[in-house]
Amino acid sequence: MSRKKLASGKGIILGGNPWPPFSIDYPLLLELIRYMHKKDCPRLLTKMKKIKLFVFDVDGVLTDNTVWMGRGKTEMKRFNIADGMGVYIARRAGIPTAFISGRPSPATTSRVKELGIVDFYQQRGPKRVPFAKLLKKYKLDPKEVAFMGDDVIDVPIMQIAGVAATVPHAPDYVKKYVDLVTDHEAGMGAAREFIDMVIIAKGLDPVDLTYK
Amino acid sequence: MSRKKLASGKGIILGGNPWPPFSIDYPLLLELIRYMHKKDCPRLLTKMKKIKLFVFDVDGVLTDNTVWMGRGKTEMKRFNIADGMGVYIARRAGIPTAFISGRPSPATTSRVKELGIVDFYQQRGPKRVPFAKLLKKYKLDPKEVAFMGDDVIDVPIMQIAGVAATVPHAPDYVKKYVDLVTDHEAGMGAAREFIDMVIIAKGLDPVDLTYK
Amino acid sequence: MSRKKLASGKGIILGGNPWPPFSIDYPLLLELIRYMHKKDCPRLLTKMKKIKLFVFDVDGVLTDNTVWMGRGKTEMKRFNIADGMGVYIARRAGIPTAFISGRPSPATTSRVKELGIVDFYQQRGPKRVPFAKLLKKYKLDPKEVAFMGDDVIDVPIMQIAGVAATVPHAPDYVKKYVDLVTDHEAGMGAAREFIDMVIIAKGLDPVDLTYK
Amino acid sequence: MSRKKLASGKGIILGGNPWPPFSIDYPLLLELIRYMHKKDCPRLLTKMKKIKLFVFDVDGVLTDNTVWMGRGKTEMKRFNIADGMGVYIARRAGIPTAFISGRPSPATTSRVKELGIVDFYQQRGPKRVPFAKLLKKYKLDPKEVAFMGDDVIDVPIMQIAGVAATVPHAPDYVKKYVDLVTDHEAGMGAAREFIDMVIIAKGLDPVDLTYK
Repeated sequence: MSRKKLASGKGIILGGNPWPPFSIDYPLLLELIRYMHKKDCPRLLTKMKKIKLFVFDVDGVLTDNTVWMGRGKTEMKRFNIADGMGVYIARRAGIPTAFISGRPSPATTSRVKELGIVDFYQQRGPKRVPFAKLLKKYKLDPKEVAFMGDDVIDVPIMQIAGVAATVPHAPDYVKKYVDLVTDHEAGMGAAREFIDMVIIAKGLDPVDLTYK
Repeated sequence: MSRKKLASGKGIILGGNPWPPFSIDYPLLLELIRYMHKKDCPRLLTKMKKIKLFVFDVDGVLTDNTVWMGRGKTEMKRFNIADGMGVYIARRAGIPTAFISGRPSPATTSRVKELGIVDFYQQRGPKRVPFAKLLKKYKLDPKEVAFMGDDVIDVPIMQIAGVAATVPHAPDYVKKYVDLVTDHEAGMGAAREFIDMVIIAKGLDPVDLTYK
Repeated sequence: MSRKKLASGKGIILGGNPWPPFSIDYPLLLELIRYMHKKDCPRLLTKMKKIKLFVFDVDGVLTDNTVWMGRGKTEMKRFNIADGMGVYIARRAGIPTAFISGRPSPATTSRVKELGIVDFYQQRGPKRVPFAKLLKKYKLDPKEVAFMGDDVIDVPIMQIAGVAATVPHAPDYVKKYVDLVTDHEAGMGAAREFIDMVIIAKGLDPVDLTYK
Repeated sequence: MSRKKLASGKGIILGGNPWPPFSIDYPLLLELIRYMHKKDCPRLLTKMKKIKLFVFDVDGVLTDNTVWMGRGKTEMKRFNIADGMGVYIARRAGIPTAFISGRPSPATTSRVKELGIVDFYQQRGPKRVPFAKLLKKYKLDPKEVAFMGDDVIDVPIMQIAGVAATVPHAPDYVKKYVDLVTDHEAGMGAAREFIDMVIIAKGLDPVDLTYK
């Protein structure tokens, strides 16, 4: 295990020397912790079987964390069709999906409308507030919610959700709060991968959940 | 052979343990099946020589499966010039190309017009219906059609087409229904690669099929 | 040396078996030929020192070979700032740059205007015609022109240019006509890399050719 | 150590032979120099602790160095949310951020407004002039400024800044002027990685610098 990957998502290569070369309060055992998380498969599956609601951050989870900007307030975001298909598959399996975004954008609103997402919050500020509203509306315990985020403002929800996931580009100081890191990149099927995992953990087959 | 790649297109790394760690009805031998498909080269070539029509899904085959969204209904898709050149090459070789999309979009319509595609269907719902129309119009057996798709709604066509192909990002539970997986990513030459293979299998040279 | 990479730009992995498994008139020794081209460094440098004009194809050389399409005729292309800086660096070194595109587009026109490119041709049809015009205008032998293209319609120019280059995504049946394949992807610095090579071959330093 | 990577950012593979195969005044020991830079970790940390201002080039640092162009002057750029979060984190840590761009663009202006950047310069010509204005305004020594750029016009600032960084795609003849090369690509978290490093070097934790 190396300390090289502690400071950023993808690690800093510093001529073979660990970085930083002094003692800080960042967990030196971060990678080991993540390894142990992942190894604890039976526990993760037990948690996945209880899931009754998906909650997704938008930027950096359903997109590649970028926004195309033009003159004035013109902007576009890049959404993934396979992720959208995942929302449909989850719905057919009886699991609704909610979005909580910390950055309001008309592009996000457009995507929400296309997917028929009913529970959608986009506002600056802590995400705890809309998350609490969702729990109340659906009469759920946090342990029945699967959450996926990618940055520091998602950490408080990661700490209480039943299953917390993130994406490869998330900083390591965020990754330490999640149960799993997807293999797919954000906006390129990461959300679908997470949905697939929960669906399969519940004993369902995605191919059976679409029209023939 | 590992079970690691079963649950998603790119696989889940779970600390060295197979995932899921219990028995499901997903084919444990998925990778072996795919290997055997590919190894059966002479059979694949025989099938390719019979091809008289190309049918492509659009999103995730001719695009990278993403859509750029802005305010309201503004949206853009990213199409590949080499794929378009492939459509021209196929046409010069006497093989028409049809598109069947499950997600209507003005961006797809624009691309269809540029390429001069005559047979174009974009509608939600099963793809069997437009596929049957194409067979009737061209008086073809399904075995004379080469089809390329990337997700669960393409499976019914994959099961009957003469040659079925998909792209690297397709989930493994879709990949098991195809004859081959392209090396190029969707929207980055995957369709061209598939066309090239069929053209070359028929003994033609793409360089000879363009103006000098 | 493997036959695996013959049929497409990135190669087809077929369970360890060569593809196609029968004899065709495609050069079995394609990779060896390319290797020998590259190994012949002194000859390539001699050719580069004679260059007095750069000619670039646009799609797939100055872009990643994709086009973003929206409703109607709306379209965007993605150009690279480092490639543009390369055009400036070449100009300061006394070498003009021309573009020849086979696909007319207002996006290409916008880029041409920004870079102050005087010699610009965009029309469907053979590229030999505008290339001959450039030779006449600048009173050059084809051996004094460096050309970069990526697909079958660029082959006739590749066959006569002083130095012909292409990009990693080009099909192998195109690559066999060039002197070198850049390491950078198209639209991500491939043109700059080619310009840098010629500039350095002429004994100049790109850092000295900009303002301080 | 190989000479293969000297001529361009990603290196040229030339059949195992070094390129160029003759003696030029480019530092043959470029990679060794970079290695030594990086190995000198304690010195780099000492320099980072003194930082009181971030200055970023825009194209190729905050973007992937590309611009999407359409008809006329329509253009879009792709900005990264994690980089923007880095600007907020730096601000909460008491370190302001300035942008100096050599290519004026309304897309850049849009991003600057969203992030609330006060110190923003976009103009063609040497970057020394706006850099000097920043030093005067904030009463700083150049050694108290962290700078990130990616091309030849950034070299003069790299030579005087306290800590100079660049991105993986920068040409090697630019990389030799910096203290570090980020692992993240430009526009995909490179700026955030640089900010994180300085923040952590100062003994702060990014998770603590956002709302809970």
